[in-house]
Amino acid sequence: MGAELSPERAAFLARDFSRGFPAYVGYAVLDVRFGRFETELVIEPRHTQQDGFVHAGVMATMLDHTMGYAAFSTIEPDFRILSVEFKLNFLRPATGEKLICRARIIKAGSRLIPIEGDVFSLHDGSERLVARGMGTMASVPASRIKPA
Amino acid sequence: MGAELSPERAAFLARDFSRGFPAYVGYAVLDVRFGRFETELVIEPRHTQQDGFVHAGVMATMLDHTMGYAAFSTIEPDFRILSVEFKLNFLRPATGEKLICRARIIKAGSRLIPIEGDVFSLHDGSERLVARGMGTMASVPASRIKPA
Amino acid sequence: MGAELSPERAAFLARDFSRGFPAYVGYAVLDVRFGRFETELVIEPRHTQQDGFVHAGVMATMLDHTMGYAAFSTIEPDFRILSVEFKLNFLRPATGEKLICRARIIKAGSRLIPIEGDVFSLHDGSERLVARGMGTMASVPASRIKPA
Amino acid sequence: MGAELSPERAAFLARDFSRGFPAYVGYAVLDVRFGRFETELVIEPRHTQQDGFVHAGVMATMLDHTMGYAAFSTIEPDFRILSVEFKLNFLRPATGEKLICRARIIKAGSRLIPIEGDVFSLHDGSERLVARGMGTMASVPASRIKPA
Repeated sequence: MGAELSPERAAFLARDFSRGFPAYVGYAVLDVRFGRFETELVIEPRHTQQDGFVHAGVMATMLDHTMGYAAFSTIEPDFRILSVEFKLNFLRPATGEKLICRARIIKAGSRLIPIEGDVFSLHDGSERLVARGMGTMASVPASRIKPA
Repeated sequence: MGAELSPERAAFLARDFSRGFPAYVGYAVLDVRFGRFETELVIEPRHTQQDGFVHAGVMATMLDHTMGYAAFSTIEPDFRILSVEFKLNFLRPATGEKLICRARIIKAGSRLIPIEGDVFSLHDGSERLVARGMGTMASVPASRIKPA
Repeated sequence: MGAELSPERAAFLARDFSRGFPAYVGYAVLDVRFGRFETELVIEPRHTQQDGFVHAGVMATMLDHTMGYAAFSTIEPDFRILSVEFKLNFLRPATGEKLICRARIIKAGSRLIPIEGDVFSLHDGSERLVARGMGTMASVPASRIKPA
Repeated sequence: MGAELSPERAAFLARDFSRGFPAYVGYAVLDVRFGRFETELVIEPRHTQQDGFVHAGVMATMLDHTMGYAAFSTIEPDFRILSVEFKLNFLRPATGEKLICRARIIKAGSRLIPIEGDVFSLHDGSERLVARGMGTMASVPASRIKPA
C-alpha cells in the first residue's frame, strides 16, 4: 500500500471528519494517511456510562468513524463511504484522560473495504488497549447517495 | 422466560438508563420488561454523519445501551452489566423523525448474557429496519466494579 | 417477502447444497423456500471437539452454508453467492442426535444480502438453541467467478 | 507476554489439537507458543464449495480451532477452552495448495480471552490473506465440563 495521499485530499479528510455526530461527541483528527486514520477524544463526564467508565458507544462511534475515514482515504473523490457492518470487542473498562483510535484498511481496491482498528486509553502517559474492532465499509458513487 | 420484573426494579432501570453519554445523545425509554428493553431517539441534526444520514455510531450506541439494559433487567440488584462485544449490520441509510430500538436477551441465567436487538427508523408513521445487532453482556458483581 | 420459488429452482438448490465440503461433513436439506433454508446434520464422533461436544466449526460451517443457500434462493440463476462475513455466538455446548439449522435473509433485493440463522441441537425429541449467527452474503454475476 | 510454555505442555497441545472434527478435516500444527498457534491445511477437493473455492466453513473451523488452542496455551492444565463467539471476514476467494492459519491472544489473564487470527492461502510459494477473524474464548474449569 505505497499509495500517496495528496496534501489537499488529506486536509479535506481531516476537515470533513468533524461534522454532525462526531463533532458533537468531540473526536479530533491526529493523523491522516492512505488507508490509515488516527483520532483522539478528550474524556469528559458526558462520555461515561452508569459506572463511570467511558461508554461502549463512545468507543464504537470512534472506531466506526475512524475506520470509515481510513477507508475514505483510499477512494476516488466522487465516491462516499457507508458502514456495512462492524464488530467490536471490549477488553477492559476505559478510563483516563484521552482515547486514541487507530484504524487501517485490511485490503484496498474494491467496493467492499475490510477495515480494522483499535481504541486505546491514555492514563498518566501510558496507553492501554481497551477495544478492538473490524468491519466492512462500502464505497458508493456520490451520485447514488440521495439527500436525507 | 416467564420471569417478572417488580415495578420498583422497572422504574429504577428506566431512570438509570438515561445518564452520562446516553442522556447526552438523547435516548429515551419506551418500555421495560424482564429481558426486554425498548427505547427511542428523536433525530436531530447533531445525530448525522457527513451525508446527512443518522450516524452509525448513534445506532451502535443505542443498540449497545438498549441491549445492556435488557440484560440488566435479568440480574440481581447487586450486579452490574459490562459490554463484552457486539456486532452490528447496517441495512439501509437511516433518516426520518425517530429511531426505535428493541433489544432482547437470547438466553438468561448465566454470567455471559447473549443478546440481540434491532433499530428501526420511523418516517411518516412507518417503521423500517435500519440495523440489527447481536452481542454478549457480562454480569459482574457490583463489588468488583472499581470506581473509574 | 411474498416471492415464490419455482419447484425447479427449489429442487436445484436442494441438490446443489450437498457438494464438496458440506457433503463431506454430512449436512442434508430439510426445507427450501424463498429467502429461507433449513438443514440438518446427524451428529457422529467425527463432528466433535476435544471435550466430546460438537465442534464450533461444524456449527459455523452449517450456519454459513445454510445462510448462503437462503441468500442463493433469492437471486437470479446467473448469479452466485460468496460469503462476505459472519458472526456467531455459541450459547451452550452442543450434544445430542442431530443439529438443525434454520436461516433466513434479513432483507432481499440488493447485491449485499444481510442474513441470519440459528442452530439447534435435537436430544430426545427436544430442540435447544445452541448457536445464533448473522452475516453478509454477496451476490456476484456467475461470469465474474473465475474457475478456482 | 514473555510467558514461556514448557516443552511438555507444547507437545501436549500439538498432539491434542488433532482430534475429532479438526483431524477429520485435516488441519496440522506448525508452531506452538504461549498465546500463539500456527496451523496448516493441504487443500483437497473435499474442502471446496460449489464454485471450486475453499469453503468458508473450512476457514471458519480452522480459525476457531487455531484461536482456541492459542487461548488453550495460556491457561492452567486443569482448565478447558470453549468458544464463546467469533466473527470472520472473507477477503477474497481462497484457492491454492495450502491454507496457513496464525492466531494469537489479544490479552491474557482472564476467564474471557479475546483472540484473533488470519488465514492465508499459499499458491506457488506466495501467501495471500484470505480471511481475518476475532472472537472470545472462555476458560472453564475441567471439572465443570460434563461428559457429552
